[in-house]
Amino acid sequence: MSHPESKVTTVPHVVKEELMASGKWVKLEETTYVDPAGNTRTWETVKRTTRQTNTEADGVGIIALLKRTLHKDCVVMVKQFRPPLGCYTLEFPAGLIDKGETAEVAALRELKEETGYKGEVVGVTPVTCLDPGLSNCTTQTVLVNINGDDMENIHPTQQLEFVDVILLPLDEFQTKIDDLLKKEKIMVDAKVYVFAMGMVQAFFKPRELPVLKQFFHKAVYLKQVATCYFQLFMSLISRCSDSVFSNCSFLI
Amino acid sequence: MSHPESKVTTVPHVVKEELMASGKWVKLEETTYVDPAGNTRTWETVKRTTRQTNTEADGVGIIALLKRTLHKDCVVMVKQFRPPLGCYTLEFPAGLIDKGETAEVAALRELKEETGYKGEVVGVTPVTCLDPGLSNCTTQTVLVNINGDDMENIHPTQQLEFVDVILLPLDEFQTKIDDLLKKEKIMVDAKVYVFAMGMVQAFFKPRELPVLKQFFHKAVYLKQVATCYFQLFMSLISRCSDSVFSNCSFLI
Repeated sequence: MSHPESKVTTVPHVVKEELMASGKWVKLEETTYVDPAGNTRTWETVKRTTRQTNTEADGVGIIALLKRTLHKDCVVMVKQFRPPLGCYTLEFPAGLIDKGETAEVAALRELKEETGYKGEVVGVTPVTCLDPGLSNCTTQTVLVNINGDDMENIHPTQQLEFVDVILLPLDEFQTKIDDLLKKEKIMVDAKVYVFAMGMVQAFFKPRELPVLKQFFHKAVYLKQVATCYFQLFMSLISRCSDSVFSNCSFLI
Repeated sequence: MSHPESKVTTVPHVVKEELMASGKWVKLEETTYVDPAGNTRTWETVKRTTRQTNTEADGVGIIALLKRTLHKDCVVMVKQFRPPLGCYTLEFPAGLIDKGETAEVAALRELKEETGYKGEVVGVTPVTCLDPGLSNCTTQTVLVNINGDDMENIHPTQQLEFVDVILLPLDEFQTKIDDLLKKEKIMVDAKVYVFAMGMVQAFFKPRELPVLKQFFHKAVYLKQVATCYFQLFMSLISRCSDSVFSNCSFLI
């Protein structure tokens, strides 16, 4: 990769963070930083006021798979009204990490509160950022399996009002999201849609190949055709030499 | 699902949005809304000041696949210093939608600026939210194919300084991200990691099955074993009646 200017001399770093405004939950700061060229610049940064000292993540998102005998595996989703967007959203269950909690503990607590399901953690991501051009907000995605055959998960009881639980089959995840969007005025979380795209991508066979790849495939195809004709020809020669040509002594 | 209280009487809605503070790029508002129980409540909401009137999305994220002859397909990623986080991040190329742009046009422009690659849009998601408990910020993810055999994509020239382009093979995406995290002090965007998880999930065969599923599988296995023994037994009977038993007239 070539840069128009590649005089990188400085390790970029934050110089100071000054409070512009603060609510109870959210604050706005002016971040002064030195860019890789050594220039001092400013940025407007959003932060939550609620991050606990024991963690680098503000919250957790939970990809919970409900596994039941004779049912398709389902992703447990939540639908709720979100004041910042003024509409209903479709999200993975999620929530802030409480004091002293690990991401795993927070995930199981939030899952239980929001959906009633009791799960088992099978994986957790590193700390990831949510909107790095805007905020310092971070999350860890926790992968949880739910044994839906377990008595306590057959009739789960939510602890929160106003959160609808929606089960979407894992093997048709993107299609079912698209169906929901057609039916309801709802906004999907970007992580949900991108997770669905990842699953589709894994099985995706691109129809359109780059030009040279098409040539390459054509070349392979032509070589195969040529080989077939060559084999057919050799087979004919062989048969002829065995039968017809064996009677033609002048040819030997 | 059962709610502790399910007296849902009101369609939740926003009543008013009052400015708490505004920078040049970001503002903080107090959102007054009516919840589904009919109670009036407040929420602290972050908004960008830059959203264009022609779109519901603030920006685009680009999942760009570089396709080259005799190379693995690669995801085009960007690494850059992000002042809100005070560290380098690994993200899909992304950017804000300019005035009059569609998501598709913005995606190809941002991809060209940040990575130098010229791509072709093959898909675009609905408008999705990024951090719905905090902000009204939205994005559309645009899926782009890059013909890496094309002359202009062989030596791409970036238009932005300080953005490193990193190519990660699609078929080892999560592993390569994990490798990068071990080597470098870098934070990964949640959408990137969740896309990787989606691809892994599509091929994932869970080792741990719910209890009843294990019983079910055991039952199927035992049925198969029993069938095998039955067939073996019938085969022996059949052979005996053909050979040994045919000489034993007293058995007939």
